[in-house]
Amino acid sequence: MYLRRTLTVFLLFSLLSVTHSLRPENHLLLPSSRKLGRDDSVYCLSWRFSVEVNDAGEWATIPLRCLQFVSQYMTGEIYSSDLEIISAESLEFAKSVHIAGDGKDVWIFDIDETLLSNLPYYAAHGFGSEAFNEDSFDEWALEAKAPALAASLSLYRELQRLGFKIILLTGRSEPFRNATAENLKSAGYDNWERLILRGATDKGKLAAVYKSERRKELTDEGYRIHGNSGDQWSDLIGFAVSKRSFKLPNPMYYIA
Amino acid sequence: MYLRRTLTVFLLFSLLSVTHSLRPENHLLLPSSRKLGRDDSVYCLSWRFSVEVNDAGEWATIPLRCLQFVSQYMTGEIYSSDLEIISAESLEFAKSVHIAGDGKDVWIFDIDETLLSNLPYYAAHGFGSEAFNEDSFDEWALEAKAPALAASLSLYRELQRLGFKIILLTGRSEPFRNATAENLKSAGYDNWERLILRGATDKGKLAAVYKSERRKELTDEGYRIHGNSGDQWSDLIGFAVSKRSFKLPNPMYYIA
Repeated sequence: MYLRRTLTVFLLFSLLSVTHSLRPENHLLLPSSRKLGRDDSVYCLSWRFSVEVNDAGEWATIPLRCLQFVSQYMTGEIYSSDLEIISAESLEFAKSVHIAGDGKDVWIFDIDETLLSNLPYYAAHGFGSEAFNEDSFDEWALEAKAPALAASLSLYRELQRLGFKIILLTGRSEPFRNATAENLKSAGYDNWERLILRGATDKGKLAAVYKSERRKELTDEGYRIHGNSGDQWSDLIGFAVSKRSFKLPNPMYYIA
Repeated sequence: MYLRRTLTVFLLFSLLSVTHSLRPENHLLLPSSRKLGRDDSVYCLSWRFSVEVNDAGEWATIPLRCLQFVSQYMTGEIYSSDLEIISAESLEFAKSVHIAGDGKDVWIFDIDETLLSNLPYYAAHGFGSEAFNEDSFDEWALEAKAPALAASLSLYRELQRLGFKIILLTGRSEPFRNATAENLKSAGYDNWERLILRGATDKGKLAAVYKSERRKELTDEGYRIHGNSGDQWSDLIGFAVSKRSFKLPNPMYYIA
């Protein structure tokens, strides 16, 4: 009887440790394993799909039941892997582009969640589960300490090596120009052709409209927009669009 | 010593059965659990992301290392769940649309992998890992026995109840009109406003061009295209696009 109980206890502990070590990928791939029930984990996977392909339309905060799911995705291996594959696909396309050498072949990058990661900020603010607080985000942006997304930094440098000019087109507004440039530089980005921020006349414009208008100005100046990388569909759609667009993941917030 | 070995064997068997039963969701969510290594499962998740958001560009067959991943996704719970959530989001938008009552408020559906599922065909042909064989697919299409995607059928009926006219816009060509209509009806779809197939003059056109042109004809006739559901980006992009587009999942093939 004693042996039996010991055996049971031993078994339980073994199971706990071995299930953990046998399948390291669960932890990475399946935010479900701890706080999410099976229904939640299926739901959150599908919710994420619909958000990333832009089926969900406008949304303000992530579903509360997906908080654990989003936090584990954003801090785990899959987010990095997603970014790396997209970066590789971007580069593959870039290599197929003929660079004329007149300085007019450009690649457009969005900044937040595309070149720079605001994950430190969002991790401290519920991974998109809290309503967006502009004042507190602005404070964070002015600190200029957002790290680079590694896959984007390496793509950025490769594109420059290939001869692309880099245009940065951000939803941030002019008062943030210095902090943004400083942050970009300290994160490793440099030698961009142009850094475009929302001016006074852009206030209240939908991001897709503001960004399309600025792209149109670029094409009117003779620039050829080959690639465009952004974590929001509003970075990529509208008019004067790039030949190829690259949607980066962002399950934390949506910008119309 | 004997006890120890028995214990070890017992432990191993317990582990195998308990890891299996403790985490039923692994099996559903993680095609990795059996034949995929951890690297493959991470890779395939990211590959699928890049395919579904249209970052991957044109591709002919799925990566061989993702065969198990794709087959388990397509035959498992997540695919259905993805479709259900998209259907719910589509319906939510549809309910916000004012129906004028003049018969001009329409919703466009693609057919293959949108209303009808060719999964029986693709399951027998490597889930997209084999090069597309037009003859053999045509044979399957002429059999007219593709089942409905349940979530799409229920959306279709709800849209009709709300007063939308349904336009079917497919990449299938005119010779398949009868078989397609027969298949749709036997799968439960009826009373569509129009079934548009590729005509002789559409041969060789990119799907996005052919479909845009046909949508343009519809808007020229006064139709208001509110929603558009399709498993391919080429169903949804181009010109004369709908107010809201709904991308359905399809990791098995890509149509430019």
